[in-house]
Amino acid sequence: MKQKIVCMLRLTEAEKNLFREAAGENEIIFTKDSTPEYKSVIPVDEELVKDADVLMGWLPSDLVPKAVHLKWLQAQSSGVDNFTAPGVLPAGAMLTSATGAYGLSVAEHTFGMMLAIMKNLPGYRDQQNDHNWSDLGPVLSPKGLDILILGTGDLGSKFACYCKAFDAHTIGVRQDPSKPAAGIDEMHGMEDLDELVAQADVVCSLLPHIESMVRYFDYDRLMSMKKNAIFINAGRGSICDNAALARVLAEGHLWGAGLDTTEKEPMPADHPLWAEPKAFITPHVAGGDHLEDTLRKIAVIGLENLKHYLAGEPLRNRKV
Amino acid sequence: MKQKIVCMLRLTEAEKNLFREAAGENEIIFTKDSTPEYKSVIPVDEELVKDADVLMGWLPSDLVPKAVHLKWLQAQSSGVDNFTAPGVLPAGAMLTSATGAYGLSVAEHTFGMMLAIMKNLPGYRDQQNDHNWSDLGPVLSPKGLDILILGTGDLGSKFACYCKAFDAHTIGVRQDPSKPAAGIDEMHGMEDLDELVAQADVVCSLLPHIESMVRYFDYDRLMSMKKNAIFINAGRGSICDNAALARVLAEGHLWGAGLDTTEKEPMPADHPLWAEPKAFITPHVAGGDHLEDTLRKIAVIGLENLKHYLAGEPLRNRKV
Repeated sequence: MKQKIVCMLRLTEAEKNLFREAAGENEIIFTKDSTPEYKSVIPVDEELVKDADVLMGWLPSDLVPKAVHLKWLQAQSSGVDNFTAPGVLPAGAMLTSATGAYGLSVAEHTFGMMLAIMKNLPGYRDQQNDHNWSDLGPVLSPKGLDILILGTGDLGSKFACYCKAFDAHTIGVRQDPSKPAAGIDEMHGMEDLDELVAQADVVCSLLPHIESMVRYFDYDRLMSMKKNAIFINAGRGSICDNAALARVLAEGHLWGAGLDTTEKEPMPADHPLWAEPKAFITPHVAGGDHLEDTLRKIAVIGLENLKHYLAGEPLRNRKV
Repeated sequence: MKQKIVCMLRLTEAEKNLFREAAGENEIIFTKDSTPEYKSVIPVDEELVKDADVLMGWLPSDLVPKAVHLKWLQAQSSGVDNFTAPGVLPAGAMLTSATGAYGLSVAEHTFGMMLAIMKNLPGYRDQQNDHNWSDLGPVLSPKGLDILILGTGDLGSKFACYCKAFDAHTIGVRQDPSKPAAGIDEMHGMEDLDELVAQADVVCSLLPHIESMVRYFDYDRLMSMKKNAIFINAGRGSICDNAALARVLAEGHLWGAGLDTTEKEPMPADHPLWAEPKAFITPHVAGGDHLEDTLRKIAVIGLENLKHYLAGEPLRNRKV
């Protein structure tokens, strides 16, 4: 039976042709054009998705249950907690993520934030805005530092490789420490985490949302870090108590903190963290569709899975 | 005959002991303590330097001619144009630089500026100051970009190695292109420079002051760069017409520009470049004494040269 595939991925014309070819006799609808602005040319609404067999790309999670015949949803994100929540995915539908597409983008952004904080670049930007040519004093180098990385998959491993290129010592933490990861000098199990956090020069979380880790970085944990350490979060924001972090920084503990993700997003305009000079905030942009490379990798994953799906083969990145 | 050595280097107590040991019977005076603030404990004035045989470290260039018996000056900087100017160095005195001590510090800072600009970090800092959580759109990745590096010595080679770790293609320019440098994929002679500037995705100058290169980057040259290219200068500021750069950015050409050095330093408060959102300015801090590693390397160079000097052997980094 002919299937209806609704593809909301941001594809080039060449990629669309490959998807059409893979779809064969099935119906495939592309909702976005391929300009750099990626306008939607077909609105993603209940009408569009209600008889879809396959959905590929981003759509609001409240639209997913409308696709009552859905057999497979290919997400365009790496984290899929919005789709695995109860009542979202129709019974029997499979779910795959775009894990593997974001490593470069997130690792580069995360490393850029860390290096910027080490070199006082946010402070120099503030001074530039005041037309103020003043020396902010000593800086840090990644060289020889102990950089602790929570989450050693695609993102954390790539980030670790960059740290190694700057001669840092990288320490990874994962459920099964016998499983190695590129760029990680030293792998530990979760049971060592508290101690490692207290010893590291940089603590960087790239973990997805994990219920048991919510607010793991509370006031006491952040205070247990070295006075001149750096805290970075570009994983899910739920791992860090943002108000506690603001308090820790205000008390002069830590060299600085870089957050691409926060507990509530957007972070409320009156949150004290905005105004902490030692905090550096970017609005959840490390991944997303900011880098050309990410879009092309999502297309590759989507195309591969479309072929597998239509051939009845197992899907890559299957989550449900 | 007993020599008088005045050492203005910022040394640890352990390093001072090694210098004392090397000095043997000669008199050695340390002017600074070893606290992180590096206070001067003995004023560096005419009284101190007038009968010095050896001066090591930084002092105002107008004090150097007062050292009428000077046999050797060990500078603590890499560039020594202030000491080679006519009338500064007493006749017969040797001059050595601290070339080799700054590669790590300058290359890390320069790479940090470049990556920050690629990821729109200065713009995100501005938004943070407005408590504004907004997406600034597409970013760049060093991966696959052509990064042109002017100056392929200690600084440029180290910077190139970092670019390679992020999978960029590095192109070097030097007087003698048959001489390779670590991290440089492709080496060219100066005669190719104009063409290379027009083709590169990033142009980064780490050159010292060169008379023939003053304002090489004028309005037309900057406009010859690709529309989305990045210009970085962490060498001497004289190579770039700063007013022209401000104009080029204001006209929407270039992705951005990062300057650690400017034509006049400090850059005048009314200079238009301060207020260009696509310019990112740091106040000549890439090198200097900002990184612990730099201070330790200067100590190593100084100690090695002190031993050579007292043994009558050739000095490292000899400039005069």
